[in-house]
Amino acid sequence: MSTTRTAISPRRAENFPSWYQEVVRAADLASMSHVRGCMVIKPWGWGVWELMQRELDRMIKERGHDNVYFPLFIPLSYIQKEAEHVEGFAKEMAVVTHHRLEKRDGKLVPAAPFEEPLVVRPTSETIIGETMAEWVQSYRDLPLKLNQWANVVRWEMRPRVLLRTTEFLWQEGHTAHADEAEAVAETLEMHRVYESFARDWLAMPVVAGEKSPTERFPGAEQTFTIEAMMQDGKAVQAGTSHYLGQNFARSAGIEFTDVDGARKHACTTSWGASTRLVGALVLTHGDDDGLCVPPAVAPHQVVIVPMLRGEDVDAEVLDYAREIATDLRRHATRFGPLRVHVDERATRPSDKKWQWIKRGAPLLVEVGARDAAASVVSYRNRFSPAEQLRKPFAEFVATAAAELESLQDKLLAQAQRRLDENIRRDITTRAEAEVFFKQDRAGFVLAGWCGSPDCETGLKALGVTIRCLPTRLGTDAPCLPCGQTSRHSAIWGLSY
Amino acid sequence: MSTTRTAISPRRAENFPSWYQEVVRAADLASMSHVRGCMVIKPWGWGVWELMQRELDRMIKERGHDNVYFPLFIPLSYIQKEAEHVEGFAKEMAVVTHHRLEKRDGKLVPAAPFEEPLVVRPTSETIIGETMAEWVQSYRDLPLKLNQWANVVRWEMRPRVLLRTTEFLWQEGHTAHADEAEAVAETLEMHRVYESFARDWLAMPVVAGEKSPTERFPGAEQTFTIEAMMQDGKAVQAGTSHYLGQNFARSAGIEFTDVDGARKHACTTSWGASTRLVGALVLTHGDDDGLCVPPAVAPHQVVIVPMLRGEDVDAEVLDYAREIATDLRRHATRFGPLRVHVDERATRPSDKKWQWIKRGAPLLVEVGARDAAASVVSYRNRFSPAEQLRKPFAEFVATAAAELESLQDKLLAQAQRRLDENIRRDITTRAEAEVFFKQDRAGFVLAGWCGSPDCETGLKALGVTIRCLPTRLGTDAPCLPCGQTSRHSAIWGLSY
Repeated sequence: MSTTRTAISPRRAENFPSWYQEVVRAADLASMSHVRGCMVIKPWGWGVWELMQRELDRMIKERGHDNVYFPLFIPLSYIQKEAEHVEGFAKEMAVVTHHRLEKRDGKLVPAAPFEEPLVVRPTSETIIGETMAEWVQSYRDLPLKLNQWANVVRWEMRPRVLLRTTEFLWQEGHTAHADEAEAVAETLEMHRVYESFARDWLAMPVVAGEKSPTERFPGAEQTFTIEAMMQDGKAVQAGTSHYLGQNFARSAGIEFTDVDGARKHACTTSWGASTRLVGALVLTHGDDDGLCVPPAVAPHQVVIVPMLRGEDVDAEVLDYAREIATDLRRHATRFGPLRVHVDERATRPSDKKWQWIKRGAPLLVEVGARDAAASVVSYRNRFSPAEQLRKPFAEFVATAAAELESLQDKLLAQAQRRLDENIRRDITTRAEAEVFFKQDRAGFVLAGWCGSPDCETGLKALGVTIRCLPTRLGTDAPCLPCGQTSRHSAIWGLSY
Repeated sequence: MSTTRTAISPRRAENFPSWYQEVVRAADLASMSHVRGCMVIKPWGWGVWELMQRELDRMIKERGHDNVYFPLFIPLSYIQKEAEHVEGFAKEMAVVTHHRLEKRDGKLVPAAPFEEPLVVRPTSETIIGETMAEWVQSYRDLPLKLNQWANVVRWEMRPRVLLRTTEFLWQEGHTAHADEAEAVAETLEMHRVYESFARDWLAMPVVAGEKSPTERFPGAEQTFTIEAMMQDGKAVQAGTSHYLGQNFARSAGIEFTDVDGARKHACTTSWGASTRLVGALVLTHGDDDGLCVPPAVAPHQVVIVPMLRGEDVDAEVLDYAREIATDLRRHATRFGPLRVHVDERATRPSDKKWQWIKRGAPLLVEVGARDAAASVVSYRNRFSPAEQLRKPFAEFVATAAAELESLQDKLLAQAQRRLDENIRRDITTRAEAEVFFKQDRAGFVLAGWCGSPDCETGLKALGVTIRCLPTRLGTDAPCLPCGQTSRHSAIWGLSY
């Protein structure tokens, strides 16, 4: 691959936002639909999401949560009950006002209006709370640990495919506990689950921490977040966990009789991660030739392209390609059995090759007649796709799993290095922050915050917010906006 | 279990509809929510649905379909394009008219109305068609075989939990083909998939056949259906497959350049199966003690209840229960590795026992101190829960998988016998049909249909419709409503 021509145009360095859109398109992940703000998730994108779901679902169930399903529609009155929650969500919801269409003058128009309109769930605390109130009567019914995989809708004024869409898919966990200590422990446990899922499966290192008050989930007492750094230095909030105190339990009436006979309100939590993780994957592991999917979540970890030329040797080439696939499928990485695909379509081999490079298949095998005759395997590793590699058949099959694991490790190391190098401790004043965040490629600033609400939002004009008060990073620097003594270490940054 | 007391009241023979509601409740499958017509799917019900999904998804993928995801919202204009489709669906849709809520006088009210309202998808032919039109340009892009798992909404005036709900979950397959023959073959292939899935996994034998014109999917050229017979003799339409001809391709503009250079419209299909299958499972395999879940889709195939009494021996009892579980998990049925659950909750053992009988766990082991001491296993098979069985530890572990498979086979045989016995060939006149369908427990009538539209709907006053024109059953009987010579054999019946 020449250094001047790349599969994606523009390149990252030229125009990062356009590069992102182009990779999402070229890698066949998703596209915006004609329905404003809503997206179509295409087969390759869905395959990645399905693998994310599978592992996250396993981690959630392993911790004793049960999957359930609650209604898409929420009566307006439920949302109205929790005052802070209303304030946070009321602005951007899809409202269902009619349940029939009628034809008038040949055109369909809404008919049969509701007395009380319904909203399409932007999140399900309120409706799940109403049911929890029925399910929870005694301390014996606690903890109640639920999760659902669902679509939610938040009307977006400035949608961006995968990262910020009006409809998106997610899991939302909702739990109720007898006391604060247990509920906070649950919140932190799921916070850690997101952190390790992002690191170990998405090869996406994050800064874990607590949100400052204005960035909390509406109605939460505490919100914990994992903040991943994209290649342009901006943050993606990649999974949040909320300790809701008794706020939602009070408004929904989740009460129980405790061991001592007293009636108490439960303490609840909620936590979610969404399809925006697929967008974050692109912004983390994309390059100027497209996406590189971490093997853990690659729908096909090895793609085999037989170089069919409409000649007699085609049958041998195809047989050899299938033989490689069959043998590979007997092996496994630490992420499970190998997922291998033989691309037998009638498309031109070089078009196929580029398609799989852009989609980011981790290993790409091109099988020609000479490979079949000599029992060798010619392949590329998506980490360095310009390099054509060659191994004897048996060696390739025996080492593919290790090569995939090594690719996963390299992606993590590369992202970790980028994160570490771009957490700046040397920017300690508002003036320095202004210069830094106007760069093309900024990063996170680890500095102080005095704790005042004014300073919390003091850099909003720059688009900069406190991404989190990090758990494992600290600084003695003064408050970034005001220069006074800090009460907290804070990660300041731009975000998606 | 005495013959006079049953876990479910009323019994099937007393009041079948109430019995159904009670089993859905007592088996912890689902409940109707406060949102009219919408349901909450509870952990045990979701577990069953998840296993149904897993196997059906596998069968769909195995046949070369890719999973995708399309928007929840459909612009009104899309639906308006296909005339027949509009007629069939326009009456019962949820309409989104606003995308904001505002507070006025302390109350939330809808704001920011759309120019063009959106409907919540009742099914996705129209919106997927619009995208297929973009994806399909040449014969090389065909066949295009897509599937999605999604929620859909059809406003129900008379909702019934799991069977007929305003919001339900399903998979909907959508495919496009170059010609009619291939599209019809696809339709029939998926029709057969539903038939074998129902039989082999749900132990639910069905009558497979084609729908008569008025019962077709709106806009389809042909609709194929599997009709399962419930214990009250009524039919549940359990999965439908539609050959859509070029109708949707024309309205959405799905055109391609064929091998010969000519521009042609694609031929499309769609097919779906939904959460109503969970309701059908209850109506097929429920008894007066609750549900009996076919082992293939039982979230726990073996439930082990340690009889803990707060005594010294509790630790041994618990150890022994866990040992049984560990050993069982090394075995597998033809449906995969055994799913075993040890119920360690602090609930009273007899309450747990009845809970699992009502939920329909296939094998229920009760572990007492004497079992642990003697290394025997005392258990019940949900097929005959009154019978307490006993086997030595090693024998139980070695034979559990076979016993589960045998239970699955028995459930199928029982349902098959009921179906066979209740397909009546001796009812050949309108007068006989009137008497038959007024019984408490009716069935299917295999009789004739002359082919006229009047006769097709001729028994609607009785609530009786043509369920299908069966593929593998035939009769020479005359037309059931009019007595004239038949053109088709037809299954006439009541339905859910």
